[in-house]
Amino acid sequence: MNEFIQQCRNAIGASYVLTDKDETFAYEQEWRQRLRGNALAVLRPASTREVASLISICKVFGVSVVPQGGNTGLVLGSIPDSSGKSVVLSLRRLNNIRAIDTANNTLTAEAGCLLSAIQQAAANADRLYPLSLASEGSCTVGGNLSTNAGGTAVLRYGNARDLCLGLEVVTANGDIWDGLRGLRKDNTGYDLRDLFIGAEGTLGVITAATLKLYPAPVANLTVMVALESPEAALLLLNEASKKLGPTLTGFELISRICLQLVIKHIPHQSDPFTQQYPYYVLLETSEHQSAERATVFIRDFLEAQLNQGHILDAILAENISQANALWSLRENISMAQATEGKNIKHDISVPISSIPEFIAKTNQLLEQHFAGSRVVCFGHMGDGNLHYNVSPAAEQSAEVFIQNQEAVNRLVHDQVHLFHGSISAEHGLGALKKEEIQRYKSRIEMNLMRTIKQALDPHHLMNPGKII
Amino acid sequence: MNEFIQQCRNAIGASYVLTDKDETFAYEQEWRQRLRGNALAVLRPASTREVASLISICKVFGVSVVPQGGNTGLVLGSIPDSSGKSVVLSLRRLNNIRAIDTANNTLTAEAGCLLSAIQQAAANADRLYPLSLASEGSCTVGGNLSTNAGGTAVLRYGNARDLCLGLEVVTANGDIWDGLRGLRKDNTGYDLRDLFIGAEGTLGVITAATLKLYPAPVANLTVMVALESPEAALLLLNEASKKLGPTLTGFELISRICLQLVIKHIPHQSDPFTQQYPYYVLLETSEHQSAERATVFIRDFLEAQLNQGHILDAILAENISQANALWSLRENISMAQATEGKNIKHDISVPISSIPEFIAKTNQLLEQHFAGSRVVCFGHMGDGNLHYNVSPAAEQSAEVFIQNQEAVNRLVHDQVHLFHGSISAEHGLGALKKEEIQRYKSRIEMNLMRTIKQALDPHHLMNPGKII
Repeated sequence: MNEFIQQCRNAIGASYVLTDKDETFAYEQEWRQRLRGNALAVLRPASTREVASLISICKVFGVSVVPQGGNTGLVLGSIPDSSGKSVVLSLRRLNNIRAIDTANNTLTAEAGCLLSAIQQAAANADRLYPLSLASEGSCTVGGNLSTNAGGTAVLRYGNARDLCLGLEVVTANGDIWDGLRGLRKDNTGYDLRDLFIGAEGTLGVITAATLKLYPAPVANLTVMVALESPEAALLLLNEASKKLGPTLTGFELISRICLQLVIKHIPHQSDPFTQQYPYYVLLETSEHQSAERATVFIRDFLEAQLNQGHILDAILAENISQANALWSLRENISMAQATEGKNIKHDISVPISSIPEFIAKTNQLLEQHFAGSRVVCFGHMGDGNLHYNVSPAAEQSAEVFIQNQEAVNRLVHDQVHLFHGSISAEHGLGALKKEEIQRYKSRIEMNLMRTIKQALDPHHLMNPGKII
Repeated sequence: MNEFIQQCRNAIGASYVLTDKDETFAYEQEWRQRLRGNALAVLRPASTREVASLISICKVFGVSVVPQGGNTGLVLGSIPDSSGKSVVLSLRRLNNIRAIDTANNTLTAEAGCLLSAIQQAAANADRLYPLSLASEGSCTVGGNLSTNAGGTAVLRYGNARDLCLGLEVVTANGDIWDGLRGLRKDNTGYDLRDLFIGAEGTLGVITAATLKLYPAPVANLTVMVALESPEAALLLLNEASKKLGPTLTGFELISRICLQLVIKHIPHQSDPFTQQYPYYVLLETSEHQSAERATVFIRDFLEAQLNQGHILDAILAENISQANALWSLRENISMAQATEGKNIKHDISVPISSIPEFIAKTNQLLEQHFAGSRVVCFGHMGDGNLHYNVSPAAEQSAEVFIQNQEAVNRLVHDQVHLFHGSISAEHGLGALKKEEIQRYKSRIEMNLMRTIKQALDPHHLMNPGKII
C-alpha cells in the first residue's frame, strides 16, 4: 500500500494524506462515541478534480472509499469499518460557495460547506435556505444531501432532496458528472440527481450542489399549544393546514415527559404553562405579508381552537427571545434524555393519520413487555416523523435496560411496519440499520437496490457496508 | 407470434387483446397526427397482476412494450415505432382510486385514472391535487408521472414528481414492486421512486401511485399585468415572490403577439386592456386565510408596483368568470398559433434570471437568420420554462418556413445550452428528442443513463427507441 499512499500524496499533496493515528482519529470516531473504525488513511482533497484523481487511484488499487462530511450522522454512515482497508475521503476542504443567483433563487456550493455557512450566505442575500438541523454548525452540504437530511422545516419546504436542483458528482469510475443545473424544470432523461441524493455515498461522491433559495419571510411566529392527546394534535394539524395554508412551517409534537426531562436536566428551562398537560405542539408560521396581520390571524385561529375545545391552552411568543425560549424546549429534548441516562432511540415515520393509533398501540405494547419503561416521544408530526425513544423505568438501571435494545427495536419497528411506516425517516441506514432494513423491505425492492449498486459501483468501492 | 397472442389472451381475456387494425388505430396514432406507429397488438389489462403477467409473457417471447396512458404526450413517447414488433400496453383500464386519506393528505390511484378524475376526487374531499395541464381531461396519472408532467401550478407545488410519495411498478422483469408509501419522510435506501418517474416507461411500468393532496384554498385571485419587457416581468416576479410568498401560485409570461393571435383566431376573446402593451403576465395567488384580505393585499401590491413604474397596468379579476376569461387567453395561445399555421415549437427552460437575456439574444439571432419570423413566446416564467415557438413571417408560406425546422431548432437549442438550460423542460424526450439530447448532454451523463437502462431493462424490452 506504500505505492497507493504515494500516489495519493502526489495527487493532493503529502500534508493532506493523513496516516498518523493521532491525526486520523477524529475521522474514524463516530461522534456519539458508539464505535470507532480504522482507516488506511484519511484523504483531504481541495477540489472536485482532486476527488476524481483520488477515486481513480482507489479504483486502480482496489481501495474502498468512505466519503465524510461533518461526521455528524446518526447511523454510522460516515466512518470506516474496523478492517483498515478503506480510506476516509473528507470533503471538508471543498468549502467554496461558487455562486449565488438571487433572481433565480439558487446557490451553488461545494460539498464541504457547513450548513450554517449556507444559511448565512442566503440570509446575507435576503434569502432563506430552509434546511435546519440540530447539527447545522458542523454538518455539511454534501452530508445533508447524501443522507437526504430532514429537520424542522420539512413540513413546508421538504427534505434536503427537495431543496436541491443540481449536483456535481464524482462517480465510482472516477468521472466527474456535472449536473449542476439551476433549473426548476428539466425533463431530459433519468433522474440521476435523486439517485445520488440519499445514497449515503455508496454510489458516488457528491462534490457540489445547486440549492434552492426562498424569499426570506418578514416574520416567524411561534406558538406552544397544550393538548389532551395525539388525536387532538392531529385535529389541530388538520385545522392549521387548512386555515394557515403554506404559512404553516413547523408542527412539532412534544409529550409531557419530554418537557419534564428538559426542565429537570437543562439549566434555565422552565414550563411555559402554569399547569401540566399531557401533550404539546410547537407550531411555527412564516409570514411574507404583514407580521401584524399575521399575529391577529394566528390569535383568532388559536381562540377558535380553544373555543371548540380542540386545544387546552396556547402561548404565542411575543418576540424573538420568547420564540427562542420555546424552541429551546424542543431542541433540548435529546440532550435532556441523554442526561437522564442511556435510552433506545427510534427515528420512524408513519402516515400522519396513523400517528395517534401508532403511539397508543406501541406505548401499550411496551408497557406490556417492558413495564414502567418511559416513552420519550417527540418530533416532526407535520411530516409523520417521530423520535420515539424509550428510557428505562425511573428506578431501573439504564445499563440493564439497554440490554433489551434488540427486543425493543423489534417491537417498535414491527409496529412501524404494521402501520406502513419507515424505520428510518430522516437519519438514513448507514451501517446501523443495514441488517434491520432487510427484515422490512421486500425482496424485490432489495434486489432493485442491489441492481443499482452493482451497475454504478461494480467493484463495490463506495462506502462499503453501508445501506446494502 | 400466434402463441404469444394466445398467451396474452389467456392472461387478460381475448377481448382485451386487440389486433384488428380498426381497433388498434387509435393507440398507434400520435394525437397531433405527426406520426403513426404499427403495433403487434394492443394489450388492455385491468389490474397490476395482469400487467405483470403480460410483461412476463413479453419477456419470454422477446416482445417489446410501449406503455400508454392517455396518449396525449408531445414527444412521440407513447406510440410504437413502425416495425410492428412492439405491443402497446394501454393502462386505461387500471382506473380505480384505491384510497383517499384526508388526514394524511394522500390519494392512491391506479395509473389509468384521468387527471381530471383525481382533481375531482380531491375536490370532493375538500382537498387540492394541484397538477393542472391543458390535457387534464384525457391524460392519466401514469402518463403524468412517467413524463414528470409540469403545467401551471409548478411554481408553488412542483412537477408531477414533487406530488408523488409512492409508486407501484411492474419491472422489466415482470415483478411487482410495491412502493406505495404515504410517507413524507423515508430514508431507507435508494430513491427508486424518482428513477421510474420521468423515465417515460423505459425502465418499467407505473401501475399505481400515492399522490400528495393539499388543503383546498379558500380563493384564487387572478391578475393580468401589462409590462414593458421580460426584464420588467423578472422584476415583478422577484417582488411578487417576496411580498406574496407561497401564496403566489402562477406566473405566466405572454408576449403581445400571443394575445393578438388569440384575439384573431379564437371566438369570443378580446383584449382586456384598452391599450396595447409589449408583454403581459398572468399572475395567480391562492389564499387560505381570507379572500377579502387577500384582495386588499394584492390591490396594494399592484398599486405599489404601478407607482414604482415596474408595471404599466393591471386587471384584477373580480369573480371566477373574469378569472376564467383571463386564463382562457393564456390557454388558447397554442390553438391560436396552430390556426395561424404550422410553426416550430420549443419547450425550453433556462435559469429564471437569464430569461430576459435569453429572449433578447434568441429573438435577435432568429431575426438575423430567418428575417421576419415571428416568435410566439409564452409560458411558465415562474419556473424558467418558456414555450418559445416560431411562426413564419406573416407573408411567408408556412410549408416553406417549416423546412427550416432543423436549423431553427439548432439555433434555439444552442442558445438554451449556452444559457445552461434544458431543451425539454416539461414534455420529455420520447422519440422526438432522443437524438437531439445527445448533442447537449455530456458523454458521462449519457453513459450513466445507459448504465441504468442496461441494469433495469437488460433485454431492452421497455419502450424501445425512447429517451435512450
